[in-house]
This record gives sequence, C-alpha cells and structure tokens, in this order.
Amino acid sequence: MTSAPPSRPGTRRGRPGYDLESLLQVAVRLFNERGYDGTSMEDLSRKLGITKSAIYHHVPSKQELLRVAVNRALDGLFAVAEEAESVPGRAIDRLEHLVRGSVAVLVEQLSFVTLLLRVRGNTKVERAALARRREFDRMVADLVARAETEGDIRPDIDPAITSRLLFGMVNSLIEWYKPRRGAGAEEIADAVAKIAFDGIRVR
Amino acid sequence: MTSAPPSRPGTRRGRPGYDLESLLQVAVRLFNERGYDGTSMEDLSRKLGITKSAIYHHVPSKQELLRVAVNRALDGLFAVAEEAESVPGRAIDRLEHLVRGSVAVLVEQLSFVTLLLRVRGNTKVERAALARRREFDRMVADLVARAETEGDIRPDIDPAITSRLLFGMVNSLIEWYKPRRGAGAEEIADAVAKIAFDGIRVR
Repeated sequence: MTSAPPSRPGTRRGRPGYDLESLLQVAVRLFNERGYDGTSMEDLSRKLGITKSAIYHHVPSKQELLRVAVNRALDGLFAVAEEAESVPGRAIDRLEHLVRGSVAVLVEQLSFVTLLLRVRGNTKVERAALARRREFDRMVADLVARAETEGDIRPDIDPAITSRLLFGMVNSLIEWYKPRRGAGAEEIADAVAKIAFDGIRVR
Repeated sequence: MTSAPPSRPGTRRGRPGYDLESLLQVAVRLFNERGYDGTSMEDLSRKLGITKSAIYHHVPSKQELLRVAVNRALDGLFAVAEEAESVPGRAIDRLEHLVRGSVAVLVEQLSFVTLLLRVRGNTKVERAALARRREFDRMVADLVARAETEGDIRPDIDPAITSRLLFGMVNSLIEWYKPRRGAGAEEIADAVAKIAFDGIRVR
C-alpha cells in the first residue's frame, strides 16, 4: 500500500482534516500510548477532532491502520536485510551492515517499530506481523551462525542467544531514544556496533 | 509486604482457592497477557474460578496487586545493586556484578519484571514504579561513568548510551527467554557479560 507524503492537517485536497499519512501518524502514536486493543475508532476520532466517517473515508478499519503501520516497520527492516545480503565479504560484515541499518530504521520509524515490537498476536494482522518478525529473527540468527562458522564470532555462545542479545540492544531504542535531544541515528548505530562487536572494556 | 510461599489451589488454610502468593502469580500472568489496564477484577475472578469477594479477602484492590508485583521485581534489582556496591575493587567489577545479578533477577522473577518493564505511568502505583526504575538506571549510569573515569570502559561512547544499551540487552530477556527450555540463568548471565564487556568479535 502506498500512501501520500506527510502533510499538515487542512493543507491538502481542499478537505478539512487529514490525509492517510498524517492520520496514520496520529493513530500509531495513540496505539502506542494506550495499546492497540485499548484504542477505539471513537478514541481516534476524538483525538483527531474529526468524525468517524471522515476516518473511514481514508481507511476501512482499525485493523487496516495496524496492518499498514506494522508493515511499514517490517518493510524497512526487510529492505535493510536484503541490502545486507548483497554486502560483499564476510558474514560478520553483512551482520554489521544489518545492525547499523536496523538502528537507522528504528530511529527513522520509531513509532511504527514501537508498535510492531509490542504486537502480541491477538488478531490475524498481528499474527502475520509476528510471523514476519520471526522470519527476520531467523535471518539474523543465520548470519550470526555463518559468521561463527567463518571464525569471526566467538564460538562459546549459542548463536541464537547472541542474535537475541544483539537485537535486544537494538530494539531497546524504542524504550529510551528521544529523537529531539541528543544523539542521532549515526551516533547510536556506532555505539551499538562498537559495543556489540568489540564490547565496552578497554583493552 | 511478606507473602506465603506458593501452594496449589485448595491445598492450604482449609479454604478452597488461593493464597495471596498463588493469586498474585496468576494475576501477574494475566496482566502481562492482556495489559494491566485491560484486565478487570472480573477477568481475574473468572481466570481463578473464584468469586471477586474471595479475591478481596486477600487483597484490597487491583492496584495493590500491581504494587506488590512491581515492588517484588524492584526489590530484587535494588538488592543486587546494593550487593554490587559492596564488591571490592574497580567500578567495572561492580558493574559486571550488577549485570549478572540483574540477569538472575529477570530469570527468577520473569513475569514480575515483565510487568514492571511494561508499566506506562497511568496510575500513582505505576508512577512510583517508574521513579524507582529511573533511580536504578541512574545507579547503572553512574557506575558506567565511574568505570570510564577509571579507564576500564571505552571513553568514545556517552556513558548514558552505554548503560541504556547494556540494560537493553539484559531487559530483552522478557521478550525471548523461555524458562523451561534451553539456557539457565548462569548461561545467559555469562553470555550477556561476555558480549557486553568483550563483544562478539573474535580477535
């Protein structure tokens, strides 16, 4: 699904209100605050200051908003994984590319990835999202295992645990990263890559 | 608040039902599944198969269940922090003690820490829990900063980011750790300490 670029309410289409993109941004922030299950279309219409039928003009259901939002996050992560696959050289270099690229996706699509990472599997859309997340996790674990086979990653930790901890670090951004103050995507990606690959100890 | 050791329903006090401890365990699991806000005492009574007044025999409110649960997790983490403070030697050794001990608390009190880490601050109890979490985070950040001053931790990353990423790894356990299969607390603590302090790269 493609969607229009972000615009301010009331600035496009000669229609008071929102386009799909700005509506989606508000919906996702609300889902993150109150939980997807805990947010009704009624809540969303109050938050937007438009009627429910104005919302339905853009999107057929709450579930469709969720689907578009989590797929945007997933598409970003899969694009990075595909890009990483084409990095020449060793698996550890592809893994570093994947880690850095994932940090960039989290920073750029913070609210969308936050929503994705909190999905619990109560609906069909959520289960589909969880299945894609598992596929992504498998790609990471495979890359870690290959890098271990190539002798570049320490063999004394189960690759499954290594990849979980690696993305534990990356995903923690949704809990503490504040876009408007402090570090940018590049600084955070550097920090994650340095700690993950070389650790925090001076040697 | 002290509570009785876990027991099966119907095996103690000559009362059909639960003691506070087993009731708390079920409540916390339910809060984690559905969200604290999304769980009513009615839901809990259905899950337990006892009346609401039987629940109120043990605990005055849903909020009190939350308070006891998140404080159990926080007390565990603060006990480890206190223990770490008394470790002789360098700040980096105290930090390693804190990281390993925190992993042990997460593994042993998994559902309680899961609840704690999902608290959003909608009620007084939640805000108090968030305040104690921030205090814990500050202790971690201070320890990282001291270890950097002592020359044991790489100075090229902001200590605040280092400590966030360090506990991002630790806290990720609530998303993927399954108590019944695979690694135990010690193996996970080893993996976290090795990756955090020395990184995953073979050198």
